[in-house]
Amino acid sequence: MGIERALAAVDADRIAERVEALAEIGRDPAGGITRLGLTDEEQAARELVVSWLKPLGYESSQDDAGNLHCRVGDAPRVLVGSHLDTVPRGGAYDGALGVIAAVEVAEALHQAEIELPLHLVAWTGEEGVRFGTGLFGSAAACGLLPQGSWERRDPAGRSVLEAAAELLGRPVRPDGAALDRGQLRAYLELHIEQSSELERRGSPVGVVETIVGLYHGRVRIDGRADHAGATAMRDRRDALAAAAECVLAVEEVSRAADGGAIATVGEIEVQPGAQNVVPGVATFSLDVRSVSPERRAGALAGILDRVERICDRRGLAWQLEGLGDAAPVPMSDSVAGALAAACERLGIEAPRLPSMAGHDAQNLAAFGVPTGMLFVRSTHGSHNPDEHADAGDAALGAQALLLACVELGGSAASAVG
Amino acid sequence: MGIERALAAVDADRIAERVEALAEIGRDPAGGITRLGLTDEEQAARELVVSWLKPLGYESSQDDAGNLHCRVGDAPRVLVGSHLDTVPRGGAYDGALGVIAAVEVAEALHQAEIELPLHLVAWTGEEGVRFGTGLFGSAAACGLLPQGSWERRDPAGRSVLEAAAELLGRPVRPDGAALDRGQLRAYLELHIEQSSELERRGSPVGVVETIVGLYHGRVRIDGRADHAGATAMRDRRDALAAAAECVLAVEEVSRAADGGAIATVGEIEVQPGAQNVVPGVATFSLDVRSVSPERRAGALAGILDRVERICDRRGLAWQLEGLGDAAPVPMSDSVAGALAAACERLGIEAPRLPSMAGHDAQNLAAFGVPTGMLFVRSTHGSHNPDEHADAGDAALGAQALLLACVELGGSAASAVG
Repeated sequence: MGIERALAAVDADRIAERVEALAEIGRDPAGGITRLGLTDEEQAARELVVSWLKPLGYESSQDDAGNLHCRVGDAPRVLVGSHLDTVPRGGAYDGALGVIAAVEVAEALHQAEIELPLHLVAWTGEEGVRFGTGLFGSAAACGLLPQGSWERRDPAGRSVLEAAAELLGRPVRPDGAALDRGQLRAYLELHIEQSSELERRGSPVGVVETIVGLYHGRVRIDGRADHAGATAMRDRRDALAAAAECVLAVEEVSRAADGGAIATVGEIEVQPGAQNVVPGVATFSLDVRSVSPERRAGALAGILDRVERICDRRGLAWQLEGLGDAAPVPMSDSVAGALAAACERLGIEAPRLPSMAGHDAQNLAAFGVPTGMLFVRSTHGSHNPDEHADAGDAALGAQALLLACVELGGSAASAVG
Repeated sequence: MGIERALAAVDADRIAERVEALAEIGRDPAGGITRLGLTDEEQAARELVVSWLKPLGYESSQDDAGNLHCRVGDAPRVLVGSHLDTVPRGGAYDGALGVIAAVEVAEALHQAEIELPLHLVAWTGEEGVRFGTGLFGSAAACGLLPQGSWERRDPAGRSVLEAAAELLGRPVRPDGAALDRGQLRAYLELHIEQSSELERRGSPVGVVETIVGLYHGRVRIDGRADHAGATAMRDRRDALAAAAECVLAVEEVSRAADGGAIATVGEIEVQPGAQNVVPGVATFSLDVRSVSPERRAGALAGILDRVERICDRRGLAWQLEGLGDAAPVPMSDSVAGALAAACERLGIEAPRLPSMAGHDAQNLAAFGVPTGMLFVRSTHGSHNPDEHADAGDAALGAQALLLACVELGGSAASAVG
């Protein structure tokens, strides 16, 4: 039967080769891969994907957010994909593996001569590094971009609108990335897990139940810049010392939440920032996540209470700037069910898991497209050069993705051969 | 008598006006004054000083480090001055007041028609912000620049040699700033205190005994960059959390030293530096000072021991890069004595103090010129827009400086009128 031929056509070696080929694009002399959203490197990655899909009969285009769409068959189609950008000095799997697995599904269906109306997608700028807007491409496609996102500027002063127009070689419009929901049956995204839950359980893949809710903010502490030698300790208003206490308070609150919520300080900056000047201003980022809105709110409140007490004791002023606040997003029961059934058919015990990372899938779910995610076991976390998934696990994941696509593509799938 | 006329000619209002006039050069829209060494702003400040001294018969020139020299009378002369550059968003007094006080001495001597062979100097780039070499101009003049200083580059890629040549409009040579020690009787520098010792004691001026010894270094902590949501607390190798502990350890060691040594973290940077990535690398500066070499070594050892224990407990690697190590510099007994005698004659109780900041004077002392410093009481520290010295205190300081110049100028001084 066609499906068995298609499953047999999923090729772990080809997946591994393509991971390596993509990893060459944006290789950073400082280590890892730097392939930021809305840059030439990300565009080169899209072109490589197009070169894989063209021989399979896919028609490719890019919308005004730079998202790559490759379609075959008639609408409504099953949408499947992930993103191609990385964080600075990131790894070869986060995002890329989901796109490669989708291509592998297309490849295997093609080899098995199964016609299935598929829509492969590579979202632009999921990591949000260059312009500070995470999940950029999928948010643009789903009409979920925060106000002002297109006008945001990178450190060089270029706006998103300008960068997108330059990339595409044409003028772009903020509404020029809008997806037509009616043309989509479902959205499926395969991604490395990034946590160690699957590794701990010895499972190659897992089915996501809920995508974490996420708060992003920035705390600014105002002290007083003073001469580092001449200012006695008792006279100092050291903004960095206060920020250091806050960083440790964030760590403590996060540890105490014991997995129910997790908080991180990933950025810190001081002004004026000279070795012989006591820092007058310190600014640091806050990232607080939980699948439970209550636990997330509790962790954030706990952190801000500590910040207040630290600054109060040191006689410093502080303020919080909110940058993002996304509620947890449950995955579709029917799509998660299709993925679970696919894993069962493959003889894999696939646990149900939360995703502690945000994903483009949450925008598709919020947009009203039945959405599901499949996690592939990975080691060494993610967002670093050591992140890794075995090609064998990835191939199992691609097989499950293929089965779910066929299931969700419904009667549209037909074996020609 | 001429000296009394000269003392009476020292004018607090003129000093205040000149402080304000200099403060207009490099005024920063973000607050304070940004007049970095080897920039057009610093050059404009020199030109203003030349315009004050020209009517008094001084001949002005700039050496190849950009240092401004304004001379009257025959060598050997008494050298007196300070610097005109600031830190980013600095204040109106650090450096500038010493140059203005020297000009006031010249002005008052001129009004009293006392001929004294004086050499007024404004050293280039004392703060060392643009190129990272503090006390640049005086070190160049005294042959004490660290190797490679002329080749150092600013963030825009321009070298010190290039910047100096551009500023002066002529080719420059690394030895083109060399002072002739034989032409100098002594070096005197008036400076705001920057600490609050004089304020606490109710003294308008103080005589410096020793300039602090100074260690500059940079600690780098290597953890692992990981996804901020997906990496459980127990799996993290958070370089920033470790650095935060280190910043607080520096503060604690410095507090425990109770003024015997003082330590500061003024710079911190994390990599990759994204809100959703656990920091993989954190780098911070170390500034450790004491007038006692033993106490400075003790404080540094105490800090590094804490860094070692913190990183060890967290399973992180760390390394220290030494950037500078200057021994304490005692001031000349004879010059300090002349300053103390001058204060006594003026009826001021002038305490003897250490300088916890580095000063150009330490280079002149190391060069073998009998050197002394006079501190003027100041508030709000220094290196910030609020630093302040009262014009009345500054005028007392200028009077003491004048008396010491006459004393050290010896028989060369003669009242014409």
